[in-house]
Amino acid sequence: MLLHTIDDVRRARKEWKGLTVGLVPTMGALHAGHLSLIKKAKETCDKVIVSVFVNPIQFGPSEDFDKYPRTIEKDYELCKDAGVDIVFAPSPKEMYGEGQRLSNDTLTYVCPPFFYVNKLCGKTRTGHFDGVCTVVLKLFNIAQPDYAFFGQKDAQQAVIIRKMVKDLNIPVEIIQCPIVREESGLALSSRNKYLSEDGKKDALVLSRILNNIKACYSKGITDISALKETAYSYLTDRHDLEYLEILDKNTLEEQEKANNDSIALIACRVENVRLIDNIYLGE
Amino acid sequence: MLLHTIDDVRRARKEWKGLTVGLVPTMGALHAGHLSLIKKAKETCDKVIVSVFVNPIQFGPSEDFDKYPRTIEKDYELCKDAGVDIVFAPSPKEMYGEGQRLSNDTLTYVCPPFFYVNKLCGKTRTGHFDGVCTVVLKLFNIAQPDYAFFGQKDAQQAVIIRKMVKDLNIPVEIIQCPIVREESGLALSSRNKYLSEDGKKDALVLSRILNNIKACYSKGITDISALKETAYSYLTDRHDLEYLEILDKNTLEEQEKANNDSIALIACRVENVRLIDNIYLGE
Repeated sequence: MLLHTIDDVRRARKEWKGLTVGLVPTMGALHAGHLSLIKKAKETCDKVIVSVFVNPIQFGPSEDFDKYPRTIEKDYELCKDAGVDIVFAPSPKEMYGEGQRLSNDTLTYVCPPFFYVNKLCGKTRTGHFDGVCTVVLKLFNIAQPDYAFFGQKDAQQAVIIRKMVKDLNIPVEIIQCPIVREESGLALSSRNKYLSEDGKKDALVLSRILNNIKACYSKGITDISALKETAYSYLTDRHDLEYLEILDKNTLEEQEKANNDSIALIACRVENVRLIDNIYLGE
Repeated sequence: MLLHTIDDVRRARKEWKGLTVGLVPTMGALHAGHLSLIKKAKETCDKVIVSVFVNPIQFGPSEDFDKYPRTIEKDYELCKDAGVDIVFAPSPKEMYGEGQRLSNDTLTYVCPPFFYVNKLCGKTRTGHFDGVCTVVLKLFNIAQPDYAFFGQKDAQQAVIIRKMVKDLNIPVEIIQCPIVREESGLALSSRNKYLSEDGKKDALVLSRILNNIKACYSKGITDISALKETAYSYLTDRHDLEYLEILDKNTLEEQEKANNDSIALIACRVENVRLIDNIYLGE
């Protein structure tokens, strides 16, 4: 069932009293990564809602909101095939009302803590995680799921959403699912569509850097500078590295030494497409 | 039933499947104003939860958090007599965890829009409404009520909470209840306890000013400056006026002329106790 209004979702949701409900929030342009979340939701819950919404308030003014891929017909077919009960694809007007500027002058926002935001992607994407938390809370309040499913690919987002759920006592359990990769190692992303064939080859460097860091850690190297330095031999002038960090996977705090709770995270532009990837060192 | 933990409330709440639940959020020191909210909740809902929590994150560093009156035994007796099902009186540690500074460095906050906050009480009480919205959303997520009850006394708070509920699609209906006054006209407030007998007499000026503005409006005066100027003859050197405003009651926007949607709001210190009051001009 493809629904476009909040009221329709609430009405359908009410019919499911006593059943467990899973929500998979997406921005559409679904790929095998999203489908792995949907599969997990189907296994965990009686009913599954997938939201497809390119959320304007999580994009900065110079980001790719307008050109972000929108493929709702194909998304809906994929969801139907995967046994999804409701695909919720609202308009920005349905989510944020009409005629008001979308800013904290006029809208109530959920603001995750500065210590979690002021690093990694949050450093360059000002306001991004406020926008993410706000829309995720709205979707939670609309769909009222028992479980919600997020990918490890957006690692900082997953940490921030778990923190939001804890801080605001939100009655939803967050299930995090592993990154899905192409055979080449490239982490799946809707933004991979922007890349040329050459760009896709250059993009492999992200997962290679992370795998190499993990291999070095497995061999006993725990010095974080030393681990990070192994990256530079992979980078060429076609790579614009934004960050490479090794942090605590639960709190995103800096560590003195890498350990089994460490996560290595990378963001890098290839052909001006911003790509991210990460790996747990301890698994 | 007096409960102190979030888990206990969730457990009790689960037993009420299919029944309507009302929440009356308070900071305790209950008076007849709170009891009018509880009465309305009892009339509206099958089950009623009253929260009693002096919320640290809505007090500024120079405000009266430490000396704010705490009378939980008496509050609990009043609630029992009024037929309340659950009194939820958590500790700050239960609500915000242990050992972390309570700030937006470390906690997820709900931030109401600047246009609603940057006026009236919000102008002097920096961060106050962020703290209010955050704790109210937490209480909503813990108690999961169908209805929540707020007094018109805190008019700006009521507008901001309705805005939060709309912006974040919170599945709770907000019921606003009229101000309860002493026979003298003084609006009930837990902070009235701080006043001496002389102070209570001086405090009557707030309601007198508002009643006079309403009387003038009823006689046809709609010029806002003229209406506000009627206040000054009431004020003495024992009154420290913080604001007197006439605004749109739903949006708190300035108006060209007073009309039936106007609200007059006053904040004034008497014996250094900050008192607020308001009146709808059109009712």
